[in-house]
Amino acid sequence: MPKQVDHRERREEIARALWRVVDIAGVQRLSLREVAKEAGMSHGQLQHYFASRQELLTFAMDFAAERSAARVADGMARLGADPHPRYVLRLVLVEMLPLHPDSRATSRMNAAYVLEALHDEAIRERTRDGLSRGREQVEGLVRAAIADGRIAADRAPSTETDRLLALTGLTPLLELRVIEPDDALAAIDRHLEDLFTT
Amino acid sequence: MPKQVDHRERREEIARALWRVVDIAGVQRLSLREVAKEAGMSHGQLQHYFASRQELLTFAMDFAAERSAARVADGMARLGADPHPRYVLRLVLVEMLPLHPDSRATSRMNAAYVLEALHDEAIRERTRDGLSRGREQVEGLVRAAIADGRIAADRAPSTETDRLLALTGLTPLLELRVIEPDDALAAIDRHLEDLFTT
Repeated sequence: MPKQVDHRERREEIARALWRVVDIAGVQRLSLREVAKEAGMSHGQLQHYFASRQELLTFAMDFAAERSAARVADGMARLGADPHPRYVLRLVLVEMLPLHPDSRATSRMNAAYVLEALHDEAIRERTRDGLSRGREQVEGLVRAAIADGRIAADRAPSTETDRLLALTGLTPLLELRVIEPDDALAAIDRHLEDLFTT
Repeated sequence: MPKQVDHRERREEIARALWRVVDIAGVQRLSLREVAKEAGMSHGQLQHYFASRQELLTFAMDFAAERSAARVADGMARLGADPHPRYVLRLVLVEMLPLHPDSRATSRMNAAYVLEALHDEAIRERTRDGLSRGREQVEGLVRAAIADGRIAADRAPSTETDRLLALTGLTPLLELRVIEPDDALAAIDRHLEDLFTT
C-alpha cells in the first residue's frame, strides 16, 4: 500500500477511535492518551499522526463532516433525478440528528466541539465557517424552492433557514430519551409540510 | 445572619463561581479546584459546602433553573393578568436562548450537563426529569391554546411542543455568531405566528 494512503487510513482509524471515546466515555475524557488507548497504540505512536489534541479534533471533525456528506449523497442518489427539495431537506435534517450510531457520534462530537469553540479561537473560526457554509447551502435550497413556487413567496428565506437548522434542537430530547426517534421525524415532517405549499 | 441562610448563600456564591468557570474557561476546566479558585476559597473550604463535583454540578443546575424560572415569572408579571399564551411561550423560548449573560451561562451549563448526562446515570435521570417536566409545561400551554381555539384543532399537541422546544437549536448559531440575536427573535416570532391562528 502506498505510504500516503496508509498514513491517511491510520489517521481515519484514530479519528474513529476518538469518536468511540466521545461516544462511550464522554468529552470529559477526550485526551490524546485516551484516544491512543482506544486505537490500540502508544501515545508516542499517535503523536506521529497528530501533534496536538487540537489537530486531532480538527481532523476528526472534518472526517465526520465528510462521512455525513457521503451519507447525504447516498440518500440523494436513492431519491433519483431532480428530487423535490422537501426530500433533500429531510435527508439533511435527519442526518443532523442522533438517529443512528454514526450520526450520533457526529452529533455528540459537534456538541463537544461547539463547547470547545467558545474558548479556543482557532476552533471557533473553523466551526463557524463550517456552520456558515452548511447554513448557506440550506438557504440556497430554500431560495430555489421559493423561486420555483414550492415555498410561499412571502416567506423570508433567511428566517426559514434558521428555523430549519433549529430542528437540531431536538437532539437533547432524543439523547435523553424524552422523545423517541418517531417523534423527531414527526416534528421534521410537520415542519416541512408547513413550509412547502406543494 | 442565621447559619442556614449563610450556608445557602455560600452555596449560591459557589454556584455562581461555577457558572463563571463554565462561561470563561469552558467545561473542560470545570473541576472543584478551578471553582474554588474562582470563588476565592480553598479546595478544602469548598468541600465543606459540596462533597463532590457531581453534588456541586447538580446544585448549580438547580439554582440556574430557579433563576430562569424567576426571570420568566418577572416577565409574566410584566405581561399582566391573563396574558395571551403566545407571549408566555415567547418569554419561555427567549429565556432558553443565550441572549443575555445570565441565560448564556445557563445555556452553556445545560449543554455541558447534557454531555455529562450521557455518561453518568444519576445526572442523566435528573436532567431527563427536568427536561420532561419543562416539556410537559409547554405541552400544557399548547393544549390549552388548542382548547381555546387559539391554535388550530388539527395540530398534534405533542409534535408542536417538540417543534417549540427545538427552537433551542438556534443556540450554536448564536454562540458562534453565525446569526445575530434579532435573527433568533425573528425565527421565534415567525414560528409562533404560524402556530397561533389568533
